[in-house]
Amino acid sequence: MLILMQFGATDAQVKAVCAVLREKGIEPLELPGEDRVAVGVPASLSADQRIALEAILGRMDGVSKVTQTSSPFKLASLEFRRTKTLVEIKDVKIGPGHFAVMGGPCSVESLDQFRKAAEVVKQSGAKILRGGAFKPRTSPYSFQGLQLEGLKIIKQVAEETGLATISEVMSADMVEAVADHVDILQIGARSMQNFPLLVEAGKSQKPIFLKRGPSATLDEFLLASEYVLNEGNNQVILCERGIIAFDRAYTRNTLDLNAVPVLKELTHLPVVVDPSHGTGVARYVAAMAKAALVAGADGVMVEMHPDPKEALSDGSQALDSEQFSTMMDDLRGLAAYMHLTL
Amino acid sequence: MLILMQFGATDAQVKAVCAVLREKGIEPLELPGEDRVAVGVPASLSADQRIALEAILGRMDGVSKVTQTSSPFKLASLEFRRTKTLVEIKDVKIGPGHFAVMGGPCSVESLDQFRKAAEVVKQSGAKILRGGAFKPRTSPYSFQGLQLEGLKIIKQVAEETGLATISEVMSADMVEAVADHVDILQIGARSMQNFPLLVEAGKSQKPIFLKRGPSATLDEFLLASEYVLNEGNNQVILCERGIIAFDRAYTRNTLDLNAVPVLKELTHLPVVVDPSHGTGVARYVAAMAKAALVAGADGVMVEMHPDPKEALSDGSQALDSEQFSTMMDDLRGLAAYMHLTL
Amino acid sequence: MLILMQFGATDAQVKAVCAVLREKGIEPLELPGEDRVAVGVPASLSADQRIALEAILGRMDGVSKVTQTSSPFKLASLEFRRTKTLVEIKDVKIGPGHFAVMGGPCSVESLDQFRKAAEVVKQSGAKILRGGAFKPRTSPYSFQGLQLEGLKIIKQVAEETGLATISEVMSADMVEAVADHVDILQIGARSMQNFPLLVEAGKSQKPIFLKRGPSATLDEFLLASEYVLNEGNNQVILCERGIIAFDRAYTRNTLDLNAVPVLKELTHLPVVVDPSHGTGVARYVAAMAKAALVAGADGVMVEMHPDPKEALSDGSQALDSEQFSTMMDDLRGLAAYMHLTL
Amino acid sequence: MLILMQFGATDAQVKAVCAVLREKGIEPLELPGEDRVAVGVPASLSADQRIALEAILGRMDGVSKVTQTSSPFKLASLEFRRTKTLVEIKDVKIGPGHFAVMGGPCSVESLDQFRKAAEVVKQSGAKILRGGAFKPRTSPYSFQGLQLEGLKIIKQVAEETGLATISEVMSADMVEAVADHVDILQIGARSMQNFPLLVEAGKSQKPIFLKRGPSATLDEFLLASEYVLNEGNNQVILCERGIIAFDRAYTRNTLDLNAVPVLKELTHLPVVVDPSHGTGVARYVAAMAKAALVAGADGVMVEMHPDPKEALSDGSQALDSEQFSTMMDDLRGLAAYMHLTL
Repeated sequence: MLILMQFGATDAQVKAVCAVLREKGIEPLELPGEDRVAVGVPASLSADQRIALEAILGRMDGVSKVTQTSSPFKLASLEFRRTKTLVEIKDVKIGPGHFAVMGGPCSVESLDQFRKAAEVVKQSGAKILRGGAFKPRTSPYSFQGLQLEGLKIIKQVAEETGLATISEVMSADMVEAVADHVDILQIGARSMQNFPLLVEAGKSQKPIFLKRGPSATLDEFLLASEYVLNEGNNQVILCERGIIAFDRAYTRNTLDLNAVPVLKELTHLPVVVDPSHGTGVARYVAAMAKAALVAGADGVMVEMHPDPKEALSDGSQALDSEQFSTMMDDLRGLAAYMHLTL
Repeated sequence: MLILMQFGATDAQVKAVCAVLREKGIEPLELPGEDRVAVGVPASLSADQRIALEAILGRMDGVSKVTQTSSPFKLASLEFRRTKTLVEIKDVKIGPGHFAVMGGPCSVESLDQFRKAAEVVKQSGAKILRGGAFKPRTSPYSFQGLQLEGLKIIKQVAEETGLATISEVMSADMVEAVADHVDILQIGARSMQNFPLLVEAGKSQKPIFLKRGPSATLDEFLLASEYVLNEGNNQVILCERGIIAFDRAYTRNTLDLNAVPVLKELTHLPVVVDPSHGTGVARYVAAMAKAALVAGADGVMVEMHPDPKEALSDGSQALDSEQFSTMMDDLRGLAAYMHLTL
Repeated sequence: MLILMQFGATDAQVKAVCAVLREKGIEPLELPGEDRVAVGVPASLSADQRIALEAILGRMDGVSKVTQTSSPFKLASLEFRRTKTLVEIKDVKIGPGHFAVMGGPCSVESLDQFRKAAEVVKQSGAKILRGGAFKPRTSPYSFQGLQLEGLKIIKQVAEETGLATISEVMSADMVEAVADHVDILQIGARSMQNFPLLVEAGKSQKPIFLKRGPSATLDEFLLASEYVLNEGNNQVILCERGIIAFDRAYTRNTLDLNAVPVLKELTHLPVVVDPSHGTGVARYVAAMAKAALVAGADGVMVEMHPDPKEALSDGSQALDSEQFSTMMDDLRGLAAYMHLTL
Repeated sequence: MLILMQFGATDAQVKAVCAVLREKGIEPLELPGEDRVAVGVPASLSADQRIALEAILGRMDGVSKVTQTSSPFKLASLEFRRTKTLVEIKDVKIGPGHFAVMGGPCSVESLDQFRKAAEVVKQSGAKILRGGAFKPRTSPYSFQGLQLEGLKIIKQVAEETGLATISEVMSADMVEAVADHVDILQIGARSMQNFPLLVEAGKSQKPIFLKRGPSATLDEFLLASEYVLNEGNNQVILCERGIIAFDRAYTRNTLDLNAVPVLKELTHLPVVVDPSHGTGVARYVAAMAKAALVAGADGVMVEMHPDPKEALSDGSQALDSEQFSTMMDDLRGLAAYMHLTL
């Protein structure tokens, strides 16, 4: 912990800060700066000690700012665990050396629709099938998903095709039900800080696909993953899916591809990109999927629909069967060029 | 619904759009513009019809954009219900003619701490006591609240003081427990789009205090309230608590006071402002609380702690007892000047 | 300057950082932290030395971040100059104890229009008349202002009414011309980092009204003022006029009133708020002007037009004569209540 | 133009809007919607007519919003000019079928430094040399560039190496001087809306490299280019260089690669990406340069320095000679794979 004093801070104010620290048994280090003084706390503090100290010191006269030298996240940190995590589901691998594609419709709408989607996904060479059974919708008047019936459809189609499956779980009390029907549990962007859900998902010991909230910083994102990891569940996949920004005239979100190299440096967890939500427009999806691969992502999640015109949700961002297959061909070529197994 | 064609759209493309509409039994209105054509859909559509049409039309050649002429929110709309809502709890009123102050610590830490806080709140003239029992924390390593024990403390102190109480509920399965112990259920900013929670909170028929998500648009905010209203629960209070912006050097969030006059025009629901989270810095809170009152807010929620230096969470933004009382005096004067009952 | 090492940084890496500093004649201070080491630079560095060191150290293995303990701004800082600045033009005062209102049309359109506006401004009790002669317009196809003819109209109406005047200057080569015709030079939001213009405006020794860029941090804003102050011109007025944010459905910008108490703490310069651009909607302007006063602003700049329906620019945010007078009455009452001279 | 009425708008209010239009000689089209009425203006209006009408209509009772069916930009629009623009300088081509790399130091610091940089750029196969002579710096206390001396160095090194050159011009009065010394005039991000500069740069008839402002929407960006095109100068290159967003902990800006496919669809002008400013961190530059190529960009501008540790500005984002050469090898491979001439 470092305490930065204000510019005109007096000696007495600096001494008062040091006194508080000594009272807590910490010997402070004074650090005279160019225009102002900093005081260092060369000691290991617990999270609660840090919070308490921050509250005390942050209110003292002459103090400008209290900053932390500790990392906010631990278990997710690459410094903590030096080996990159490889998540394995059935014969699918997500992590170093691989490029995973997850495809499928926004919502499971019927057995027939989902089977057709699965067929396209499988034939194109993708190995993970996505489909929403529980749909978080901005408006209560929109289609909310087939719910349990949707989960059953996913399970049946998985058995028919052998594809690995992923579907979203929206609340802690549904974790078990969803975990019984699919291979990977998705935590949606709007649930990234639903902490009871994160804990319960962690306990399931299923692989967790955690989407970044639209206004979550990378620190907040990694701290959310920490809730899952803290339950002893190391199978966490991070997903960048577009952040909120000021220009929403042409795309739904702003895909933050900078996050890919940054996260790869900060954490050992695999990083997947969702260009469907990241753009919100079907005709920009393939370009951004390819860019994600080249930027170092471990995979992409792409919405496709066998007949997007009939989609009950997000139809305007879903690729149709032909677009999906073309994108897969492009990705396969690029993956080979980059020495990745797709 | 309006379909805006691209600039170079051909007659054939416009005709194709019209044909799709006619196929669905809708007679389109062609609207030649300066540089391009728009096609109007003069018909009442259900939400699902709209979504389906949007998906079909949005993908057609020559189409630039599909926009809606329908309001996304209904029950919350001032056009829907012409009378402003007055929420009443015990002898406290939130709505037209009143200015409500909710004060108390971020977290309930002990019976003693909470009693002391309640005393300050009551003596200063505020009528609603806040205190967190379940704490949504960015890090799993931070204090998570006293949970059920905290709820019991709130209930006991409410009985001792006669103050109305408010506390946060974080998941659908805890709604009943929280509703049994407090007067107003708070849905936190990070839960604004926790839809199962919104539905369950609506069913409780308790007054709901809904905080705006840090990156939620006003439409998304009102649509979240719609989930509660849709359960027949009209006692909803909206709370602006700061949005995310690009400069976080001096304040934790950017308090969006523009939202006050805008929301007052859009909705009949009361609008409260939280300057504690809106600034994140104790010494800016009073100025922004006063600005909120003058801008037309129906109340403020302010964090205070009898001894902020010992706070287990958010200590740097909590007012101490004296600061809280001074702010209350200022607000009382301004409220009288503005002819509001505080 | 503080150098924060990465979590797993080795002793050798820390030593290498210290060696670089010693090479430059600086004796480093090692500061062991909870999870990682920080290295302090207890010495006064010039701006260029700092930049050079930052570049060297920021690239070294094991270094996580280089932060500054020096304030980026000096002359604008309240620590640098302990007395609040009072800007005086004719009999108008902007600064402590006063609340200044600047009113007038977005553009000077004709002598007749500007005279009528001036009359309303004067009768309502405001003392500063604004009007644009050079208009920065997003589109080259929009009205660009009357230019020199507009300046002459401003000067004539100032002489007729005795009002102080303010108008925008858009480029360094026009500073002299504008300075010859008006009392206060406005630097628009889009010119906030037009550095040659800032330097030239500084040299004019006229009071400078500097608007915050829509995405400028407060540090960048104060550094821009530093360009003017650095020319020996201390008559700088800062203006918050709305920042860019993610929701633009109901307002043009997001008025950042948090900036008022923050800036008042950081700088001795007066802080004025522009609720016209800050909201972009005439019917929200008065509420936000009042909120600005209560939050501690030293004044407001408000667009008004004697006949807004005929305005050649920004008509939808201009108050009409009656709205302007009503707002002035409200502000006068509030100013008296707050013991400010309006 | 379309006028959207409020939900509860009365027939009389709709009729009043229609009456205003008829008064101006425009026969309105009424468009009954689901919840509210829209009124269409099927006529060609000039920019000033549109602004005037918008001001009148936007203030009328019952009117919710006035939107435009006309494109804000014309000359830049792909609909206006169906052929993609190919900018040619010496033997360098920027546009369809090509991938251009611009490399060089942030600032020209000395003949020796710039020569060394040019050598690396040339040997690596890049054909355009960048270097700043006039530096827009946030702080007046930072190095402001070698100015005219810098321009002379650029010209001399261009003659020695045969490389095409690009350098920034910061004000209208310096356009001629810069145009005399370099091949491409750069308008920096902070000058994107310096309209007098855009007009003067347009008049120079030199190729213009226009950087997107950090908070400029794509419409504003294209309208800025329109100022140049409007002077009869069609040689405009657009540059995405990172936008402002809420998380600045790990990168300086957020590179908006979505803008690449969107701009390629909206405009015929070439689109270049600057991953140096887009990330602000040398070790993320190559990944984002490659992603830009794959996403469809026509080139990249990358900062390199023969000795970044000694750089006088932006040293932490500059590649060193080896990093630059490695990136060029990677880009060459990818360009070949994508059938682009680098």
